[in-house]
This record gives sequence, C-alpha cells and structure tokens, in this order.
Amino acid sequence: MNTVVDTALIQSLDSAHFLHPFTDFKDLNGRGARVITRAEGVYVWDSEGHRILDCMSGLWCVNAGYGRKELADAAHQQMMTLPYYNSFFQTTNVPAVQLAAKLASLAPDVGDRSFQHVFYSSSGSESNDSNVRMVRRYWDLLGQPQRKVIISRNNAYHGSTMAGASLGGMSGMHAQGDLPIPNITHIEQPYYFENGLPGETAEEFGVRAAGWLEEKILAVGPDKVAAFIAEPVQGAGGVIIPPSTYWPEIQRIVDKYGILLISDEVICAFGRLGHWFGYEKFGYKPDLVTFAKAITSGYMPLGGVMVGNRVAKVLIEQGGEFNHGYTYSGHPVACAVGLANLEIMEREQLPQKVHGEIGAYFAQRYAELNDHPLVGVAETCGFVGGLVLVKDKARKTRFHGDDGVGMICRGHCFQNGLIMRAVGDRMIIAPPLIMTRADIDEMMRLIYLALDLTQTELKARGLL
Amino acid sequence: MNTVVDTALIQSLDSAHFLHPFTDFKDLNGRGARVITRAEGVYVWDSEGHRILDCMSGLWCVNAGYGRKELADAAHQQMMTLPYYNSFFQTTNVPAVQLAAKLASLAPDVGDRSFQHVFYSSSGSESNDSNVRMVRRYWDLLGQPQRKVIISRNNAYHGSTMAGASLGGMSGMHAQGDLPIPNITHIEQPYYFENGLPGETAEEFGVRAAGWLEEKILAVGPDKVAAFIAEPVQGAGGVIIPPSTYWPEIQRIVDKYGILLISDEVICAFGRLGHWFGYEKFGYKPDLVTFAKAITSGYMPLGGVMVGNRVAKVLIEQGGEFNHGYTYSGHPVACAVGLANLEIMEREQLPQKVHGEIGAYFAQRYAELNDHPLVGVAETCGFVGGLVLVKDKARKTRFHGDDGVGMICRGHCFQNGLIMRAVGDRMIIAPPLIMTRADIDEMMRLIYLALDLTQTELKARGLL
Repeated sequence: MNTVVDTALIQSLDSAHFLHPFTDFKDLNGRGARVITRAEGVYVWDSEGHRILDCMSGLWCVNAGYGRKELADAAHQQMMTLPYYNSFFQTTNVPAVQLAAKLASLAPDVGDRSFQHVFYSSSGSESNDSNVRMVRRYWDLLGQPQRKVIISRNNAYHGSTMAGASLGGMSGMHAQGDLPIPNITHIEQPYYFENGLPGETAEEFGVRAAGWLEEKILAVGPDKVAAFIAEPVQGAGGVIIPPSTYWPEIQRIVDKYGILLISDEVICAFGRLGHWFGYEKFGYKPDLVTFAKAITSGYMPLGGVMVGNRVAKVLIEQGGEFNHGYTYSGHPVACAVGLANLEIMEREQLPQKVHGEIGAYFAQRYAELNDHPLVGVAETCGFVGGLVLVKDKARKTRFHGDDGVGMICRGHCFQNGLIMRAVGDRMIIAPPLIMTRADIDEMMRLIYLALDLTQTELKARGLL
Repeated sequence: MNTVVDTALIQSLDSAHFLHPFTDFKDLNGRGARVITRAEGVYVWDSEGHRILDCMSGLWCVNAGYGRKELADAAHQQMMTLPYYNSFFQTTNVPAVQLAAKLASLAPDVGDRSFQHVFYSSSGSESNDSNVRMVRRYWDLLGQPQRKVIISRNNAYHGSTMAGASLGGMSGMHAQGDLPIPNITHIEQPYYFENGLPGETAEEFGVRAAGWLEEKILAVGPDKVAAFIAEPVQGAGGVIIPPSTYWPEIQRIVDKYGILLISDEVICAFGRLGHWFGYEKFGYKPDLVTFAKAITSGYMPLGGVMVGNRVAKVLIEQGGEFNHGYTYSGHPVACAVGLANLEIMEREQLPQKVHGEIGAYFAQRYAELNDHPLVGVAETCGFVGGLVLVKDKARKTRFHGDDGVGMICRGHCFQNGLIMRAVGDRMIIAPPLIMTRADIDEMMRLIYLALDLTQTELKARGLL
C-alpha cells in the first residue's frame, strides 16, 4: 500500500467530509488533522514522515503491537472462507464458537462466578448496553423487576451509546442529548490524590471510598439496586488506580446486598494489568465482564460480555428468548482475528511479561517521575500509568482547568515523537505490551523531555 | 482454512459458550445450531456439506456476494499498513477520509439537504444512538432544547442498543430492560394489507398513514418534536413497502413543522432498492442517513451517519466539542474494506442492475407468487421481497400467531437449501445483488417448493 500521501489534500478532504469523534469540528478544520499513515511494532508514522512512539496503543487497543502479519492472514483467510454470517436463526460459525470457548478457558474457575458464556457485540459501548439489558432481565426473571438501578462512578467511562454514556460519569457527555437515561446513578471515584483527607492513608481512603457504594445502595433502597459497574482501574477518566483496600470492600458490599458486579474491562483485560482479566489483579469476582479493544489488538472491531455462571444460568434456564443482539454478534472474521490475537498473546506470554520482570522495570522507571517538579504523583498498574501535573509539588497545588496544562504537555509529547494522552491535568499512558526495556527507556526519555518543555512553557506563560 | 469440522463438537461448544443474539438459549441448546462453514457467491454451506441459497445476504449484508478476494486483500493490506488508529485527538487516517469523501460523492446534490459529512460507528445500532445525540444537540444549539421527542413507528427496527431498541417499535424488545427510554414515541406503520380499510386504495391509505405523523406531532406539541425516523422500506419488521403516496406526504408534514427527518438505511442503502440510497427510490430528502451492513458487504463491522448540510452546518459552526464518538469511529481497516466494496459495486453497477432489467425480472417472477393459494400478497421493492401467508386467500384470513406458520415455512426453506426469513406470518427475502436470472429462477423454484410443503404440513396439522 502506498503510504506516500498528499497531506494537504487529505487534510482538506478530512475537513470537508469526516466528522471526528469527541472533536470540535471547526477547531480541527482550522488546524488540519495529522494524518497517521503507517505503523510497525510500537511506532506510528504520520504523512510527513514523523515517527511517533505510541504509548497509548492506538487507544488502549494495540496490545500485541502493529504489523502483525498473523492477524492480517487470519482476517484474509476467514474472509475468503466465510466473511459473514448471522447467528440469529439457529446457525453458528466456527470462529465465534472457538473464541467463546477460548475466553471461557482463560477465565479462572471460581465456582458460580466462573465465566463459561460469551455474548458478542462490536464495541465496548454496545457491550455495556447489553449489560444493562442483561442485569435487568436477570432480576425480572428472579421476580424482582423493581431492581433496575445501576450504580456507577463519577468520571467513569463506559462507552458512548446513550446507555453507555449514562453509565459513564462524564458531565460533558451528559450535557448533550438528554442524558443520563433513567435508573442510573453515580458515586465518587476512588481518587486518593484528590479526595484523600489530610492524614488519611491510601488504605484508609480506599475503604472510605468503597463505603460510598453502601451509602448509595441504602439511599436508593437495597431492593431497587440491580448492579454496580466499574473498571478495575478507571482508564479514560485519567488512570485512577484504586488503593489496595478498595476492591475487597466493594466485594464485601455487593455480596452483602446481593447486587451484581459488572467489571468493565474494555481497557484492563488481555494483559493490560498483567493478567488475562483485570479483576484478577485485584482479586474480586464480577458477574459480568465487558471486553473489546485488545481482544483483537484493535485490528477488527469486536466486543462482548463474558457472562458469569450465576447470571447465565438464569438467562438460559428461565429466560425464553432474549430479545437483544447485534447483526455483527459473533462476526466470523472479527472472531478469527480475536483468536489469532489471543494465540499471539499466549505464545509470547504478554500478560505474564507485564506481570513479571519487564512490568517491574516499567513500574520502577515510571515511578522515577515522582521526582520531577511538575509531577504531583506518578503511578502505574501493569502497563497503564498516570501522573498529575501540579503547580506546587510540596503543597500539591493543582493548576486551574483553564490553564490547559494537559493539552500543553500533550502538544510537547506529540511534537517530539511521543503519544501520551491528556485528561485534564493528568497525563496517561498505556503502551503496547511488547515494549522492551529499550522502548521503556526511550519512552522515559521522551516523557522527561516533554515535561521539561512543558515546565519551560508554563513558566514563560506565567503559570508557574 | 480447513472447513471440515466436527459438527457435534462445534455444536457442543456452541451450547456451552456462545450466547446467540435474539435466541432462546435453552431451546437452541436442545436442538443444536447449524454450523455455517463456508460461502461463495450467493451460496453458503453448512458443516454437513449442505449447500444453501442465501436469499437474506447473511442478514441484509452481503450485497456484493461471498468470496470477494478484493475485500480480503484490502483488509490484509490495510492491516499490514495501519491496522488501527484513533481519530479523537486531531489525527486522521487515509481510508476513513477517502470513504467519507466517496460517500459524499454518491449522495445526490439537493442543496441544504445534500450530504457532505460522515460520522462513523461500527454498527447500525451505534449509528442510531448517534442520531439521537445529534438531533437533540442540533436543536439545543438552535436554542430549542425542548425539542427532544423523536417519533418512530410500531414494528420498526432501528438497532438493539437501549436507544436503538427504543427507537424501534418492537414490543418484545421493549418488554426487556426498562424500555423505551424517555422522549421517544411511535405511530402505526404503513401496512396496507393489515391496515387498509375496505374500499380504500393503497394510495389513499398511504396518505392516511402519513397523516398519523401529523396527528402525533400535534399530540406531542410541534415545538417539542425533534425528528421523525423511518426506514424507506421497513425491513426487519417484515418488508413493509409503503404505498407510493406515503413518503411525499411524510415529506410535506416534516417540512411543515420543520422537524428533522432521519432515514435509517442500514438495510436499504447501497443498491438494495436500486439506488445508492433508499431515499432516492422514494424521492424524499432526509437530514440524516443511517448506514451499516452493506457498506462493507458485511465483511467488516462498519456503520455511520451521513449528516446533511442543514445539520452539519450547525454542529460544525456553533457546536464546540461534540462529546460523542466511538473507539472504532473511522477504523482504517473497516473503511478500506468499505471503499473496496463500493468500488466493486460501482464497477459492476450493482445498484443499476437492481434498478434495471434484472431487477424487473426479479419483480416479475416474485409477483407470480400472488397466485399461490397460501400467499395473501407478495411484493418487492428493488431486491427486497415480502409475502404474507394466509389461511383463506379470498377473504384475506390470517393465521393465528400461535400457529407459527412463518417458522414452519422457514423450516421447509432451510431443509431444502433456501434461506428465507420468517417475521410472524410474513416470509421475506433480500438476496445478494449479484443474483443472475438463473439464480432468481432457482430461488423461485425453492420458494414454491417450500410453500407447497408448508401447505401440506398445515393441512396435515388441521390449520388449513
């Protein structure tokens, strides 16, 4: 494929025809989009030949890295064999069955919370939509139709459909389109840097933050609550890593009130936290697990829900027809690519790598950022990292939202060949799991460069 | 790829792990799913070697037919070049831009209702979710935030997310999961066979049926209505083809009250009705067009919304950031496959073929079914066809829902190598657009066989 493109032409067509996601269209048209043309390993290139270290894995997707011929071959082969068929009318296809069996085999066996069943979609958004339908159907079938309320967290991201955005706790999304939909409510996130009290340890805070769930359950009425949904580590919200005490206390509370637990692992599954599934990292037991993104390393749109035995048993034995599903549920090509991707991950032991020595090196190097004067705190969990940019390190004084400090830093990253994402005053990374020690060293060099340039610019602007 | 599979093994894994869309899981597990293993042209094969003429194009998807090496090659090449990159952060990719430009070039130029902009998703469901967000945002920006209500039709299908299922008018879907969401309401569909009055012509009925929209607008309050959404031809609802007078009257009404018109063309676009877009067939002017399925002939999940100039101008010029989008919005591989698919359709003139002689032959042959004693009425529009099975042809007496007459007929189709879908007492088809006269003859032979076998079975059961 010819990757030499006329940048100005593509930018002009881009402005004229492509409405980008989560974008101020007018602003982008004024600037012109950067045209990403090719990728290999942990790098992407733009149309002007700039090489960029992609420390966001596309968008939490490309866990196995770019340029995987096995995945392209799997797609080609399946497209020539059976490019599409539906699974609605008592028909099935081999890759969808094999991938479901594979996913079931990867999930740890923990009795009635084990995962033997998969419901497919094409994205995390659709999967969380399916979760809403499934948990409400579950309670209906158990004779508790009043259990409709799903509790989520502020600043959570659970997709961009109406239901996904409602589950999410992003106020900007709720402000457009008459959201949230009914019977979804939110508690505060476990963000110690922001919400920890003076003198309170992270562990103490974790228990207190989990307690907000119990308060909310009691406020709503325990017999009205269907489920609690959360990411193991809040991803798009800015890589908010919970204290070690948070999830055990959440588990105690959901068990006490008998409510379902949905673990949204669109970001955290498939090695990202050093395990096949993010819940394994924190040792809790969800009833439903949302997946997407890295299931195919982003090469094909694919998502789904792993349905735990407790829920599956009721839906299968008592449910009759489940009036829900998608045209692409169990898409044979997407599932074939997913299978090939999991084979790569298994063969190269990518989750184990993150869990092991290379993950330790990643954590150690990233923790060094805590010494940088602009960094309030820098933390990692597996192969995700987040740091907060501060005005005054000693006093933990934060910048004003209007300062746009994250965007300034992101600009310096991009200009110097590093993709790091800004979320308010936080800078976050989630690099491909194939990163070597040398890649990590290069990433750190570029992060320091961007932070130093940010510091210089902030001083020049009088913001420091 | 080895397409020889152990049917019993796959069926057993299917039962154990794969929760199918729109399925009674327990019932399916008892029967065992039919395993579709390969496909070529207009045929699919199951794992037992049965060849089946696929007159549903997978599920309204495979317009260009199975076995298209160009599409597999396009996917492979793009996966090796750039398998994924996001379009969120002022970056773009070449296939997404080129496909958007291509789609804009295919839409007729009709002034402020022209289509120059594309918003991408991965499915029709996600696209209709985006439509809800876009129309409400549009009215917000115009200072009319109270315009939230979207009017749809009973028996409509607009996807399976919470918003998509709410827009849809399927009572079975609304019964599961606390649906519909607020500010969505429905009118009756233009089904002449069911709702035409004695002595009323189809044309008279079409005007009356469109009038239900005006009644609903007045009931809701014209200043509260944001949009009307409909398929050109109601597809999953059973191929309900509106009388020729319906759409002109709908156009007059939406224009009179200034409300937006959403044309859901997940099924009807890309040649299905003999034009690039279904609205061209009926000559109306939508503001938003939902697409998915045949954009890639189903080879890759891809969907989106074509945003007309009236709406795009407001969102771009006055909108600021649109807080909505999907990880896979503008997926480079999906868009590359979409481009290659449209190239095939253009080169082989598939829309023109449906519009021309082969389409006329299809219509003529299908109309012959009106002489079959079991058929109440058989109609086509482009390459979709529907017929209603009746107990008494002269009196138009219909079967009881409990008789399961559609499922009986579908069983005979499948057993004899024909895929035809049952929707209640209606049998529907939407074959690949590459069908030859010989394929159409074979299809008709198989339909007659299935109808005759159905008639025999119904007599044996005492239902006729």
